[in-house]
This record gives sequence, C-alpha cells and structure tokens, in this order.
Amino acid sequence: MSLFCADAFLSPLEIEATVTRALEEDLGRAGDITSVATVPEDAVGRAILNARQVGVISGLPLVAAAFRRLAPDIEIVPHARDGAATAAKTELMTVSGNARAILGAERVALNFAGHLSGIATATAAFVARVAHTRARVICTRKTTPGLRALEKYAVRCGGGYNHRFGLDDAMLIKDNHIAVAGGIAVVLKRAKAAAGHLVKIEIEVDSLEQLREVLEVGLADVVLIDNFDLQSMRQAVAMVAGRLAIEASGGITLNTAAAIAETGVDYLSSGALTHSVQNLDIGLDIEM
Amino acid sequence: MSLFCADAFLSPLEIEATVTRALEEDLGRAGDITSVATVPEDAVGRAILNARQVGVISGLPLVAAAFRRLAPDIEIVPHARDGAATAAKTELMTVSGNARAILGAERVALNFAGHLSGIATATAAFVARVAHTRARVICTRKTTPGLRALEKYAVRCGGGYNHRFGLDDAMLIKDNHIAVAGGIAVVLKRAKAAAGHLVKIEIEVDSLEQLREVLEVGLADVVLIDNFDLQSMRQAVAMVAGRLAIEASGGITLNTAAAIAETGVDYLSSGALTHSVQNLDIGLDIEM
Amino acid sequence: MSLFCADAFLSPLEIEATVTRALEEDLGRAGDITSVATVPEDAVGRAILNARQVGVISGLPLVAAAFRRLAPDIEIVPHARDGAATAAKTELMTVSGNARAILGAERVALNFAGHLSGIATATAAFVARVAHTRARVICTRKTTPGLRALEKYAVRCGGGYNHRFGLDDAMLIKDNHIAVAGGIAVVLKRAKAAAGHLVKIEIEVDSLEQLREVLEVGLADVVLIDNFDLQSMRQAVAMVAGRLAIEASGGITLNTAAAIAETGVDYLSSGALTHSVQNLDIGLDIEM
Amino acid sequence: MSLFCADAFLSPLEIEATVTRALEEDLGRAGDITSVATVPEDAVGRAILNARQVGVISGLPLVAAAFRRLAPDIEIVPHARDGAATAAKTELMTVSGNARAILGAERVALNFAGHLSGIATATAAFVARVAHTRARVICTRKTTPGLRALEKYAVRCGGGYNHRFGLDDAMLIKDNHIAVAGGIAVVLKRAKAAAGHLVKIEIEVDSLEQLREVLEVGLADVVLIDNFDLQSMRQAVAMVAGRLAIEASGGITLNTAAAIAETGVDYLSSGALTHSVQNLDIGLDIEM
Amino acid sequence: MSLFCADAFLSPLEIEATVTRALEEDLGRAGDITSVATVPEDAVGRAILNARQVGVISGLPLVAAAFRRLAPDIEIVPHARDGAATAAKTELMTVSGNARAILGAERVALNFAGHLSGIATATAAFVARVAHTRARVICTRKTTPGLRALEKYAVRCGGGYNHRFGLDDAMLIKDNHIAVAGGIAVVLKRAKAAAGHLVKIEIEVDSLEQLREVLEVGLADVVLIDNFDLQSMRQAVAMVAGRLAIEASGGITLNTAAAIAETGVDYLSSGALTHSVQNLDIGLDIEM
Amino acid sequence: MSLFCADAFLSPLEIEATVTRALEEDLGRAGDITSVATVPEDAVGRAILNARQVGVISGLPLVAAAFRRLAPDIEIVPHARDGAATAAKTELMTVSGNARAILGAERVALNFAGHLSGIATATAAFVARVAHTRARVICTRKTTPGLRALEKYAVRCGGGYNHRFGLDDAMLIKDNHIAVAGGIAVVLKRAKAAAGHLVKIEIEVDSLEQLREVLEVGLADVVLIDNFDLQSMRQAVAMVAGRLAIEASGGITLNTAAAIAETGVDYLSSGALTHSVQNLDIGLDIEM
Repeated sequence: MSLFCADAFLSPLEIEATVTRALEEDLGRAGDITSVATVPEDAVGRAILNARQVGVISGLPLVAAAFRRLAPDIEIVPHARDGAATAAKTELMTVSGNARAILGAERVALNFAGHLSGIATATAAFVARVAHTRARVICTRKTTPGLRALEKYAVRCGGGYNHRFGLDDAMLIKDNHIAVAGGIAVVLKRAKAAAGHLVKIEIEVDSLEQLREVLEVGLADVVLIDNFDLQSMRQAVAMVAGRLAIEASGGITLNTAAAIAETGVDYLSSGALTHSVQNLDIGLDIEM
Repeated sequence: MSLFCADAFLSPLEIEATVTRALEEDLGRAGDITSVATVPEDAVGRAILNARQVGVISGLPLVAAAFRRLAPDIEIVPHARDGAATAAKTELMTVSGNARAILGAERVALNFAGHLSGIATATAAFVARVAHTRARVICTRKTTPGLRALEKYAVRCGGGYNHRFGLDDAMLIKDNHIAVAGGIAVVLKRAKAAAGHLVKIEIEVDSLEQLREVLEVGLADVVLIDNFDLQSMRQAVAMVAGRLAIEASGGITLNTAAAIAETGVDYLSSGALTHSVQNLDIGLDIEM
Repeated sequence: MSLFCADAFLSPLEIEATVTRALEEDLGRAGDITSVATVPEDAVGRAILNARQVGVISGLPLVAAAFRRLAPDIEIVPHARDGAATAAKTELMTVSGNARAILGAERVALNFAGHLSGIATATAAFVARVAHTRARVICTRKTTPGLRALEKYAVRCGGGYNHRFGLDDAMLIKDNHIAVAGGIAVVLKRAKAAAGHLVKIEIEVDSLEQLREVLEVGLADVVLIDNFDLQSMRQAVAMVAGRLAIEASGGITLNTAAAIAETGVDYLSSGALTHSVQNLDIGLDIEM
Repeated sequence: MSLFCADAFLSPLEIEATVTRALEEDLGRAGDITSVATVPEDAVGRAILNARQVGVISGLPLVAAAFRRLAPDIEIVPHARDGAATAAKTELMTVSGNARAILGAERVALNFAGHLSGIATATAAFVARVAHTRARVICTRKTTPGLRALEKYAVRCGGGYNHRFGLDDAMLIKDNHIAVAGGIAVVLKRAKAAAGHLVKIEIEVDSLEQLREVLEVGLADVVLIDNFDLQSMRQAVAMVAGRLAIEASGGITLNTAAAIAETGVDYLSSGALTHSVQNLDIGLDIEM
Repeated sequence: MSLFCADAFLSPLEIEATVTRALEEDLGRAGDITSVATVPEDAVGRAILNARQVGVISGLPLVAAAFRRLAPDIEIVPHARDGAATAAKTELMTVSGNARAILGAERVALNFAGHLSGIATATAAFVARVAHTRARVICTRKTTPGLRALEKYAVRCGGGYNHRFGLDDAMLIKDNHIAVAGGIAVVLKRAKAAAGHLVKIEIEVDSLEQLREVLEVGLADVVLIDNFDLQSMRQAVAMVAGRLAIEASGGITLNTAAAIAETGVDYLSSGALTHSVQNLDIGLDIEM
Repeated sequence: MSLFCADAFLSPLEIEATVTRALEEDLGRAGDITSVATVPEDAVGRAILNARQVGVISGLPLVAAAFRRLAPDIEIVPHARDGAATAAKTELMTVSGNARAILGAERVALNFAGHLSGIATATAAFVARVAHTRARVICTRKTTPGLRALEKYAVRCGGGYNHRFGLDDAMLIKDNHIAVAGGIAVVLKRAKAAAGHLVKIEIEVDSLEQLREVLEVGLADVVLIDNFDLQSMRQAVAMVAGRLAIEASGGITLNTAAAIAETGVDYLSSGALTHSVQNLDIGLDIEM
C-alpha cells in the first residue's frame, strides 16, 4: 500500500534529508538519554499511529522514514495513505520493532504528521468551500523555512494546488518590478525576453486599469489580482475573457472563499494555508 | 542597538545555517529570475520592515542575516528589538542597499519574522493570563522540524521559558519508560544512576497515586502532571509542598490557563505555542 | 563594472557552494604544498586573466569568487563581463594580492572560466547560424553532473536560452510516459490535472500523426518534435500554426542548424552545447 | 561481475556523494513531476543501457549507484565493465524495477556514463597512438570542477595514467615558484626540505638550460618539459639519460602524439583529455 | 550481542556521521590505491580485532560502522562489548567479507577503538582509585574537537560520568561571569531567572568565602571548588552539608584522587581523561 | 606577523570547516547560555592566550579562526607563531572584543591549541633526541579521526615530517598485500604498473630476507623495516646502501630513538606522536 498521496509531488531525497535533520535536531549529541537509561537495548514494542481528530492526512512517508532511519529493519504496516480523510479516531500505521528506536523517533514522526496533516486539513476545508465552482485553491511561498517542498506536498494532499516552489521556477512580477522597470509594458517585455520557453509569467495588478494594460501587452500567462473587491473581480473575469488565468489573492478566508470563487476567477491563493495552521492531533499509542 | 531579546538563547551558528538553508530553498538553482530580468544589477532600494498587527516581535536577527547573506554590505538600521510589543503599525527595521538582494531575501526574511513573531505573540498572550501567579509558561518538543532552536528562542521573546531542547539535555520519564522498567521506583533509580550530575530528571504521572510514589522515591527534580483536573492539581501542589517543581500539561488553552496557574503549579506547558500558531502580519515596504 | 551577463540567471549561493567545493577538491587535506614550500607567506603578486582565443566569456563571477575565497581582501579589477565576445588576445581581469592565494586558486578559477566560456562560445556559434530566423537556441538537461546551473548560465552568456533546470520545474512528456499512461490524450489530461498553474507542459512526438493528436487534445504549451526531417518540420510548423511553441531536437549540429531554423520552428535544442564542448583557452599571467 | 575497471582508483564514498548531489540537482524540490503525474507509483519497467557508438566505457558504477539511490532494491545486471571497448551497438547493463525510479534517475545516469566514457574513449585514442613506444598518456588538473576523482578514474579506464589529484599530493614547481624563490637551485632545495618522504617533486622547465640546472641540482623526481619542439625533446631525453622521468606537455594532440612519444619521453600529458571531450553516445532503452 | 556499553549515551546518527567523515578523510579522492593495485576486487578475508593490552574497551560500534560503511553486507561477530575489561590478549570482534573493504576501513576502525578505549581505560583507573568512596569521576569539555560525544561515551564505558556536553545544556558560572555580573548573588539571580526548569546551575568558587556566599544565595545546584587543598575541601563538605553537590577540580591526578575523594566531595572532574590519553593497543589480525 | 609555522602544510578551507564543526559541537542548539544570562550583549573584554608550560606551539591559526568565527571584527594580536618554543610562561596572543564571543569560543580555541601544541611538543622532544643524526622523525596515519590534516601540521610545527595523509596519496604495501598478491616481486610489479608517476611506493618488510628481495626487484622508493633490532637495522642500512630510503617503525620511544637513528636509517615513524599525546597547558586569561 502506498504511503504517498497520488499526484502530489515530493522528491524522495528531500524526505531523507529533512528527516535526518529533524532527528539530529532532537537526538542532539547524546541521543535519547531517558530511554537508554530505562529501556533495555533489545526491548521491542508495537506502536499505532492514530488520528484523534477529523482531518486529512499528510506526512506518512516522513513518519515511516523517521522510524526506519533509526532502525532500518523496523516493520511498518500502513492502514491509510496521505490524502485520506479520517474519522475522529483512525489508525494510520502500525510500527513494530526496537523499542528505543520507536521512542527515539516518536516526537519527530509526530511533529511531521501533525504539521503536514494540519496543512492538508486546512486546505481541504478551503477546497470544500469552492467545490461548486471551477476555482482551484493554491498555496504561496509563505511557507515555514526549510519545509517548503513538504508543505506544498501537504497542500496537494488536501486537494489544493501549488504556486511556484521558489524564485526560480516561474516569474511573478510585482509592483516593485513594475516601478523599477518603468511600467507594465516594459516590464512584461523584459520578462518575456529573458524567460525560457518553459517558464510562465504571472503579473500582479492592483486595479482594473493595470489589468487592461496587461491584456493589451499580452505576454503574461497569469494575472494576480490583489485585494480586489468582488465587483472588481467579476469585472476582471469579464475583461480577461479566458485569455489568461486569474489568481485572486489578499486576505482570503474560509468565509470569503465561496463568494470569491463564484466571481469566476481561476485560482484562490492563501498564505495562511501554510503559515498559520493548526496541527492535526495525531498520536502514537505504544505497547511494550 | 541589539536585535536580540535579552535572556533568550540562540546559537549564532544556528542562525547562519538556518538562514542559508532557507535562502537556498527559495532561490533554487537559478535564483530570483523575475528580478534579474526586470531590475538592473546596480539598482538600489530602501525597505521598511513593518509590523501590521499588535504583537510581540521575534526574528529580527534572522531578518538581518537573510539580507546580509545576499549582500554583505547592506545597511541595516533597527528600530526595535526582539521581545518588543508593537502597536498595530510599527516600523521595525530599515534596510538599504542592492535592490535585487532586497527582493531576493524578502520572502525568507518575512517568513522568519512572521512565524517567530507569531510564536512570541501567542506566548505573550498566555503569559498575560497567568501574570498574577508565580507560574511560568513553557514550550515543549512539539516544534516545527528544523526550527526548534529558533522557536524556543521565540517563546522566550514572548516571555515564556523553555522545556528541554532535545532528547539529550534532560530526562523526561513517561508512561512507556515506567512500564518497561517495571514501576516508578525502579525507573527513577535507573534514571538517577545513569544521569550526569547536571542532568535534571522529570517524570510524568497520571494520578495522585503515582505522584505519591514519586515523592516517596525522591529522585526526581520535576513532576509532570498530565491531564489533571483543577482539584487534583491543587491536591498535587499540597502533596508536593515545594519538594520538587510541578509542570502541568494536557490541552491547556488561553481560557483555562489562569485557573490552572492559580492552583499553584510552577509551570504550564503548551505544545500549541509552537505547533499551531498564527503568523504575525509583518510586511516589507520597498521603495526603489 | 558587473561581472555577470545581463539576463542570465544564477543563484549567488550556488556560486559560493560550487567554488568552495572545487577549491576543497583541489586543495585536499594539505593545501598547495608547492607554494607553501617555495613562496613566502607574505609575498604578493599580480595576475592577468587572459583570453587567448576568440570566443565568448562566461565564468568571471566564479573566477572572482575563487580568488576571494582564499583571500577575502584580494583586489579584483574586471576588464570584461560575462557575455563579452573577445578577440584572440583579451585581458579579462586583473587580480592583485597574496601570492599563495593567487597560485592556490589559479587552476580552479581557470577550470571554471575555460569550461563555461567554452559553452558560451559554442552556443554563440550556434546562435549565429540561426540569427536570420526567429528561432532560439536552447540547452537540455544533458549537463555535467553538479554544474547544471552554471552551464545553463553559460548558455545564456552565449546568447542561448534555457530548457528546464530539472525534473521539477516543468513537465516534459516522453514516449515512455505516453506508453504507460495509454496514449497522448490520457497522458496530457493527467499531466494537466496534476500540473500547477505556473508549470508548463511540453510533449515529445515522433510523427505528424502524434502531433495532430496533441493539437486536438490541446493541453500542451510546447511540442518537441524529435528527429523530424526538414520536410516534416515544415509540415509541423504549418499544422501547429502558432497554437503552441515548437522545439526541434535530435542530433542538430552547426551545419544543420540554419536549415532547421528556417523551417519556422521556435526552438532548436542541443545537448552538445553542454556535454561535448571544447574549453576556451583562458590563462593567467602572473607577475610576482 | 565487477562494474569497475581494474587498477583504476576511485573512492566508494566519492561515488555516493557525487551521485547524490547530481540527483538532488536534477530532482530539485518537487522531484520528477512528469512521471508522478503520468506513471503509477507501482509500475515497473526494464531498461537497457546501450552504447550507440564505438568507444571505451566508464561510469557504470555511477549508473548503478544512481538507480539504487532512488530504489535500493532495483535489479542491476551488468553486461560489461568499465574499461571495455564497445562495438557500435553494445548492451552494457539491464536495470529492472520501479518505473518512476528508472525514469527519475535516467538522465543523471546517462550524464555520468556519457561524460566519463567520452573521457575514456578520448584517452584510449591517445594511448593507441603511442602504443608502439614506452610513453604513458597522463591527465592534468584541468578537470571539470567537482568531478576530478571521477574524471581521473575515466582516464584510467581508457588506458591512461593519472597526474596528481590535487595541489597536496605531489609538488609541481612552475615558473612562478622558480621566480619567487630565486632560481632553480634554491627552489628545489626548499621543496626537498619541506617535502615528506612519500611526496615526489616535479619541476617544469622551458629550456634545455633550465633542464641542465635541474639535473645538476639533482633533487627532482620528474621534469616537465613544456612546449619543447621535437628536436629539443630528443636532446632532453639524451641529457636526462634516465636519471629522472620526463613529462612532455603543451598542446599535444592526437596528431602530434606519436612523434612526441618517439622522442623517448616517459609521459605525455594532455588537459584536453578531461576538459574538451565529446560525450560518448550512451542511451537507455526503456520498456514499461 | 550488543556492542554498546549499557547506560552510556551516544546518538546513532552521531556514529554514522563521524565514521563517514573519518573514512572520507582517510580514503581521500582516490581511495585505497595500494589495495586496488594489489588485491583482487572479489577477494575475501577474515580479520580479528584484538586488544593487546589490559584495558577497558570502547568504540566497538564505531569499528562495526566503519567496516559496514564500505561493505554493507560484511559479517560482524562481536566477542565483547564496550565497557568490558580485557586481559592482555583478548579477541574483540571477527569481521569477515570483502578484503578491500577490510583493508580500507582498518586504520579508521583502529583509530576509533584505540582512542576511545584509551579514554575508557584511563577513566577506569581513576574510578578504581576512588571506589571506596561515594565520589564519581567525571569528564569536562576539554575534549578533542569533533569527538566530544564519542569521548563522553568512552568515559561512561570506563565507569565515569559526564559533565555537560556543551555550552547549552547546563549553566556553569565561572569567575568572569561573576566579575562582569558584579558578584555571586547577582550572577546567580540572573542565571536562575534565565534558566529553564530543566537546566541545572553550577558555580565555580575559589575560596570558602565564595562558597559561603553561594550557600546563602541558594540558587545553585552544584558548586565547583577549584584548586582547593584537602583541608579546604573537607571544610567545604562540612559547610555544604548536602545542600548542593560538590565537584572538585584542578589538576587532579591518579595519585591525588583517593585523598580528594575521601574528603567527601561528590565529583572529581579531570580534563586529562579526554585530552591527554594513551591509546589502548588494539590491532587487527587479517587472514586473506 | 604570521600565525603559521613555515613549511608546514594545512589547507585554509580545512581550518574553517574544522573550527566551525567544533564550535557547533560546543554551542549546540542554544549557544552559551551562561554568558547570555550573565554577560551583557555589548560587554567587551580582553584575553591573553598563555602557554603555562615549556613546549612548542601549534594551533594559533585555529585559535584566531575560532574567535573570528563568532565575532568577525574581533582584534587579534599575535605574540608568537606556530613552531615557536616557549618558556614556562609565555603570552601567545591577545584577543580583544565582544565578551560573549570570547567566552563562547574560549574552550574550542583552547582545545585546539592544547592538543596541537601537545603534538608539536612531543614531536620536538623526539626530534631533539635524533638531532645529531640525519634521521627525520615522521608521523603515521594513527591520528585522531577528523583531525588528520591538523595533527600532521602540528607534527611539522614540532620539527617532524609527514608520512602519507591518507590511503590515496602514496602506496604502502604491507604483509597482507604481499600475501594476497603472492610475494614481493609480484606485488611490487603490480603496484608499479598501477601507480601514477607522482606516486611513491613504500613496502614493509619483516626481515632482511624480505629486504633483499625488495632490493632485487627494485621498484620501491622506500622500505619500512618493522620491529627490527638495532643490529638488523644496521645490516639493513648497509644492504640498502642508499638505493632507497629506509623508515624504521615499531614501538619507537623517546628512549630508543637515538640508538635507532644512529643505525643510519632515514626515518623514524611513531604513531604515539599523534595518538597518545599530553595536552600542552595553554590557558586564556580574560579581563572584562
């Protein structure tokens, strides 16, 4: 059974590196001194990973990687995979093997599972609000330092989609770029001239006037309309008429999402999906 | 003017390593392709870091480090330091220098500032609720993977105190350790026999009976009373009578904090301070 | 004076990391034992970086970084910048300072400059052949392991453009993907469903029949026509009629480039630009 | 069956580190997004590594390491080993296992195999030209940054031998060292005084006069005669009369190699073997 | 059979990282060139790790890790575990497998075993001298750079206990801290105010007067009496009367240890245990 | 004034990397919590590095690097350089600047200085015993894991010379290589055939018979006579008659060194110089 959510992207080497760093952070120089002092080296145990809240799961491959990193021969039996919606009490995985390894990796495993499932759950709530429209919910670069790829994966687990992963994989022209370059026409021409043929160009506009100029220049793939009211959004959708994709952003919340999606925009982006999320309560029940 | 909060601990090498990793994550292979395409290499700018919400600041040394990492000669003028409580609109720092460096480090700088100030602000709210008591608010190991040292620093910025930083700097005996070892007396003896003379021992108990046994054995420095009701907490405080420190934990919220603190326990610990926090809204106003 | 080629992308942290790794590789454990044995520690020198061949320069920021890594206060005066076309003998940079640092970084600096200028020069030759058309010359992922970002930067220095930087920043659907998915329509639908809104989709076709199917499905941004003859290329251009971009690939050489470009395709890609390139002869003339 | 060329040196840890870095470079943050979107996670495939050109193979251990890094249990069956001369079409290795892992590591594996086999093939051509003499063909430090150990291994696969691996494993005294030290006698004495008993000393000379002085001083193990004409080389060989080894360098090409080797010099060194090499055409034929 | 000493702390990730670094240091760029040149790639061998001196063993997990790092399937049969006291000639471990891997890891394995067993042996000698008292022997932060966690583990193998592992896991107030803060009372109050509830505070005193002040202030957990004579130590023990733990330090040797321990102090600390230790003679007898 | 010993080799990048690792090891996650709690952030101080014992200094560049790593603008005034012989009390360096940085780097700086000066001092004592002969004292690969380059530098500071730095920079044929290859003649031929022209070959012999065979084969540069008695050494010197260098090894001590050197051997090697050395007592006197 796969641990991964289908169609959600995450480099396997990223998992390895991030899990190792997290374990090093927790084990420090001396390791789990409590368990070494109190649990025999050859003791074995069995642990059940449990979701204790309704939510959407993300992070199981990291949980497995954390336990395997300390005990390569530990036995892992998954009962769910990332992207699954859980009831209030759901067994996600059974882990059997060396007791010290289970105790030593427990907190790291739970920190990954709780954080990423929190993002997936928040995303799923957002997605549900706009499910009657064609709008997609997307994340931003407002992610926790060091965890971007993981958090973007978690957004996918929750049914959302990803904005760019960094400053280097797409162009997003903002007000400062426009100002320095000397206007929308010139900035778009410069961007298009420099961009590779597989690099999309998005441009942020603050007004319908700017949007009109973007449409006239015609080199952008996506326009980001920032802090538009609903009426302006509807006008924007009409003006654009499908010629480019429209991303709405700016303080979008669960409560405003449906109305915004109904204006006909293509994407709703929310930084809060990744930067202000409640952990999902996931625990480990251990028997030794 | 110092950027650091007084009495809050953070290794300078940790700052460097974490900021570099975050910038590498955002810049990727090609760097900030939008700015390279649209902003001249020698353009200069000035940016003001602004708190746009009431809160407590944390992360200014990381903000400064992010800008300096891309432009060592950038000019940084701080207007506040970590630990400061801000009004709804407060200028925190002025950054002047190479425009591409400002744009290239902007998101990383803000991600650190928003996340850590969110933790400091949440901590300060908690601390305010118990200010009329002698109880201290403390964090846990439920931190974001890779950011533990930074998040523990942020808790201090908010007026809280730190639990252990990892599995290796103090012993915390939990139910599984007790079960495997065969009881409270034996587990405490094993722990004390193994612990160095600068390592404190904390033990988690689920009942007053367990607490009584801990007091009889007498080798612990701190007892963690988990999910006790207020009445049991008061009894625990009376039983302990100052012989060891008492940490209360288990789903403590802003609403329950005052009542718990009033029972006379020494410490209230909350994982939510670090794992479920709202970003503080901090932005960068750039002039070029 | 800038060292960088305008509009060519390269993360500054990538430069630092790659230069450090190269110096560690050359200095090994004991460093430059010949110079330590024979040149006084406080000796100073002056060195001129010279292009000894006609070509296009790339790599000057790496040259400067190599010398500065061993002697932060070394003086660097550039006489050219990346992207410059040089005569048979052209002074590129003057480096003045500690003699041991100059000798210790010399080979690393030259290895970067010669290799990247070789790529820029080869690219420029290619670009010249198609200058009378609207076709752009682009690179591939057939790069030297560990140097991809640098080599893609060098292609830009020579007037070329970049294909994707890795497996993660754009989709390129090849024959195996089509075969496993079960045909062009289904593979494109799957790709589009999974792709973020800033991710372009390119698909490789082997025949005009496949191209027709791609056009009917209509979800691709770019089509890669692989090993088409000139006649088929012209037919492809006519069929596509500007609805998506066309990349021609497959053993394109300097001799065939013009004819291919004249068919009206948008991009000519060549792995040889990065994987089979002659060093440009660049030397360092040192006076001590 | 071994993958390695006999008598060619390469640290196993170097392979691991270089392959991991190359895969990280290609997979980036999100990994192989095309294959995740279009190929089922549990799909399996079989791939044949094919040499499509006559040449000498190098890099098979890196090919195997790349596939194993993404799928430790992948099955690898070698049909050739490094150092083998291949016909125009030769199967080198069969790889069977997870389809995404095969597709994800394909380009990295081919980049290593093509580059290193290119070096081995170029070296073998050189070696063939001097096979009727006792001269050995050797490489230099003009290698691709980050790949020195691998490229020196590839030279051995082609029948060549290695010059020093870095600045620290042998002394090579050049004109600047001589100039700063104040002459050949003093520089050789300084070098010999400082050199460990397992460190050889080579000195570069530009004239027979300098060579005479080197012979008189008598502390060198090897003399490098740089840019000598054939007549001078013969005189040098006669003068040296076997008292030290002679390395000829300076723009040696396939066309001039035989004549130079016939002068009686011991070593011909060529930077072009590693810095200006044509990839060998090696491909991966995948069946899924 | 376990390789580890019971109750001695060492993070498993620390072992991996340190062993890899040591092997990289020894193998360099080209690896074990002697063995590659002279031992067939598929040769196998058997090696016995032998203690050739009376002592206490430490380092077997690192020995095993070194061999496994070069040959994951090597067979390791332990005959002793860390902490064991050995006779003059004792077989510790049998290693069977690839001959080149055994030869390539031999020196690294022995360097770990000899160094750490040297520390364990020196510690055991110290411990033996004070065995008739209740004093414990402890180490310091005077460790070999890069090996602190390993050396502290070795001290435990010899029967000693560990002082703090770094500057961050306990407070140790020294003369400079007292001077800057302005006296013992103020420094202890500052330290206590800042310290987390699981951080112990130790303070160094130079005189009984200072000790008296420490006792009056009452916030320290441990007092370090530095360079006290025996008479003063006895007075200190009497003054303290069990209210805090006493660590004696300052040039303590094997010869003075018993008398010091008999004064009633709790801990004797010695930097020499880790910074000035004789290797234990451990060798590898190889049969091929 | 230089900090480095003349003619002693050490890569500057090695210093940086090793010092950073050592500081990270000591500062851990939270840094120097005692100093942060008790010393104001802007306090400054002055510290004198003092040798408190007669000895030979090594490690001053690492001391300087440690302080500079925590405070780049710290002022360093050297009063001695590595390789200097000191009286019982000698000021080596004055360090002025941020007090927390001085306290935070103190222990790391002293650990380097004490350890490396200990090696230099032990080496100098050895060198003094053989000063009336032409024999050189050399180290081995029996070094502390992770510190080889530094320890070999320290041996040079003490007047000794270096054996190979790793398995890759020279060949040392031992009994197992001879046995597997099938005798001295064949092993030497294999080694010579594989060795590059700048790689020396040393072979270990256990008897005069083996030495005779080595001389007959004639391909070695150095012979290592292991555990020969004085009489056999003299015979070996006579037999060799200058045709190759002779290294004597095997339990050589200060007491036996002179007699061994007087036999006429070229090199005396001692593992104890690096693996069993007493720290030199170097302290830091701080005024704040």
